[in-house]
Parts: sequence; C-alpha cells; structure tokens
Amino acid sequence: MPYVNIKITDENVTKDQKLKLIQGVTQLLVDVLGKNPATTVVVIDEVHTDNWGIGGKCVTELRTRK
Amino acid sequence: MPYVNIKITDENVTKDQKLKLIQGVTQLLVDVLGKNPATTVVVIDEVHTDNWGIGGKCVTELRTRK
Amino acid sequence: MPYVNIKITDENVTKDQKLKLIQGVTQLLVDVLGKNPATTVVVIDEVHTDNWGIGGKCVTELRTRK
Amino acid sequence: MPYVNIKITDENVTKDQKLKLIQGVTQLLVDVLGKNPATTVVVIDEVHTDNWGIGGKCVTELRTRK
Amino acid sequence: MPYVNIKITDENVTKDQKLKLIQGVTQLLVDVLGKNPATTVVVIDEVHTDNWGIGGKCVTELRTRK
Amino acid sequence: MPYVNIKITDENVTKDQKLKLIQGVTQLLVDVLGKNPATTVVVIDEVHTDNWGIGGKCVTELRTRK
Repeated sequence: MPYVNIKITDENVTKDQKLKLIQGVTQLLVDVLGKNPATTVVVIDEVHTDNWGIGGKCVTELRTRK
Repeated sequence: MPYVNIKITDENVTKDQKLKLIQGVTQLLVDVLGKNPATTVVVIDEVHTDNWGIGGKCVTELRTRK
Repeated sequence: MPYVNIKITDENVTKDQKLKLIQGVTQLLVDVLGKNPATTVVVIDEVHTDNWGIGGKCVTELRTRK
Repeated sequence: MPYVNIKITDENVTKDQKLKLIQGVTQLLVDVLGKNPATTVVVIDEVHTDNWGIGGKCVTELRTRK
Repeated sequence: MPYVNIKITDENVTKDQKLKLIQGVTQLLVDVLGKNPATTVVVIDEVHTDNWGIGGKCVTELRTRK
Repeated sequence: MPYVNIKITDENVTKDQKLKLIQGVTQLLVDVLGKNPATTVVVIDEVHTDNWGIGGKCVTELRTRK
C-alpha cells in the first residue's frame, strides 16, 4: 500500500531506467517492511532543469558550467 | 482552505472530466467538513503511463497486456 | 490506481469524517473516470494551524480573530 | 536540506522568474532558519490551467471571464 | 539531486528500517541513473491508518478485519 | 492561487519563524509573478530527523556526529 514519489530532472531517462526504479523501490519495500507489492504505487516526476533549484541556482545553469 | 492533489495516469482525460473532479472534490469538502469552497484548491497531475508503477510494473506494460 | 492527497488543517476531524472523505473521493474517481476503486489510494494529511498559511497569515491567527 | 515545492499555473513564467523564485526561497530559508543553501532544493511545478481548480471552477474558465 | 518521498502507514516502523529505506533508495538512484548520493534527499512520511484509504475503506478497518 | 509546500526537519522551529516563512514566500510570489496573496497557500511540513535522509544517511545520525 505504500506510495512513493520520485522526482528527478528531465534528462533523457529511458523507459527501461524508469522500470528499474519502479522495480527496485517496490522490492525494497517488500524486503524492508514486508509490504504487498500488488498495491505499492511508484510515481516518477521528471522536472525540467529550469524548474529545479539547488544551492540557489537552477540546474540548467549548473549543467552549462560543467 | 483545503488543498487536494489528484494524481492519475495521462490517458485522454477530457477538460469536462477534470472539471467534474474539481467540482466533486470541492463539494465533498463542503459537505463533510464545512470547508469554504472559495479557498479550496484542487490540482490534477496527469502522469505518463511509463512513469506510473504498480505491483513492480509500469502501467504502459499493464495496458498492453489487456 | 489514482492517488489522492487531501491536506486539511488539524482541527478535530473525526474518524468518521475521514472515512467519508475516503469513500467520496474514491467513488468520484469511479463515477467520472471509471477508475478501479480497489487500487485507488487516498491519503489525508492533517496540518497544524501554525503550519498553514493563506494570505500571508497563519491559520492560527485567522482562527483567533474570528 | 529543506525541500520546497512551488506549484503555479502554467502561464508564461520565464526562466528568469523561475530563477528569482529559486533564489528568493533559498535565501528565505537561510535568513529565517539558518539552513545551508548548498543542500536546499526548490522544485517548481507548472500546472495547466485546466488542471487547477479553485472555488469549484477550473482556472481556464476564470481567466476567460476576466 | 533527486528527491524521493515515501509514504507508508504509521505501524511501528523502526529507525533501522527507515535507515534501510533511505540507504536502499539512494543506492538505487546511483545504480540506475548515476545520481550523486550526496544531494539525494529521501523523506519518509508515516501516515495514521485512519488517514489512509484504499478501496474506499480506511486501513484501520482493514487491519481489524484480518 | 499558488500552493507552496516547505519541508524542513522538525528541530524546534518556532511559530514566529513559521510565520516569517509564510510571509516571505507569499511576498516573493507577489513580487516575482504578481500573484494574489489572498489565495496563496503555504503549508509547512516538519519531518522527524529519523525520517529525513541525505547522502544515504538519516539526519539524526548527521546531527550526532557534529
């Protein structure tokens, strides 16, 4: 019955990577807490790098500087 | 003053259906808790089926199997 | 499969009122979008009135003024 | 280490405005609580006006009436 | 830089179990997406069983029936 | 009409500090985006340090080491 929301920047995450996140988090909740995977929900939000800030800067800027 | 967030898969939900969700939830909060509808906020997030997992599978796969 | 999060102020909401919110929202998603109630999740967050702001004021103050 | 999520309607918010929100919220948490800006995360969600309800109406309608 | 929010029912989850969730999710994001663990944030919300609904019923009722 | 959710660790934040966060965020949204403060909602979640992870560690541990 758990609900997990994963927020990541929108930077070419593949469908296969998303599936691995969904599988991995679901299994973790089974292993650690014995939760029922059938009702475990995982929602992934991909956020534009303009809309994600850390350290008072937006990620778009941080990526450019690298 | 309540805030309600509805997360659903992004599968051709119409503007009229969204309005019915907004109206229905707002009225429910009036009926059950006597909340003021004028400051009741409802936000609907439509999530790509690749990004929604249940039972360790992504919804895109579940829809294909049907 | 929808996930609904209801945030309200923590002001003596009863267990019965919470159940009515859960039932009402679940039924709304069945009626409007044909969603499966078995996997519809509703989570209610009760927030202390000191921690809820509207109009630049916290609700604790607004309640006192009434 | 704080996490701040700002939800606004998707109405032509510029990259510069988003940066000002990120900078302003981060600085506020430094000023009020002495938080470390390096690990302060701000995520801005822009929500379609069809998907945002207030007062039992969707914002798209409210904008049209003005 | 990812942000992960895990919502579970408040049913005697230990500090050690919480740490395992934090470690497991952080490692998953390193393994699948190559994210930097230093800025990966995990927040666990424990929700009272009265406040969690599934299938139109609150979890408190579901637990009693077992 | 914006909705802002601030998540911070639960470490003796005073009512006055919370009010300053509410006022500051509300004013920021007025200044940057011209939003109406009357319908701007700010919700502060205080999270137990056992339930907040960063860098794969929980904050309770990080505070002890200092």
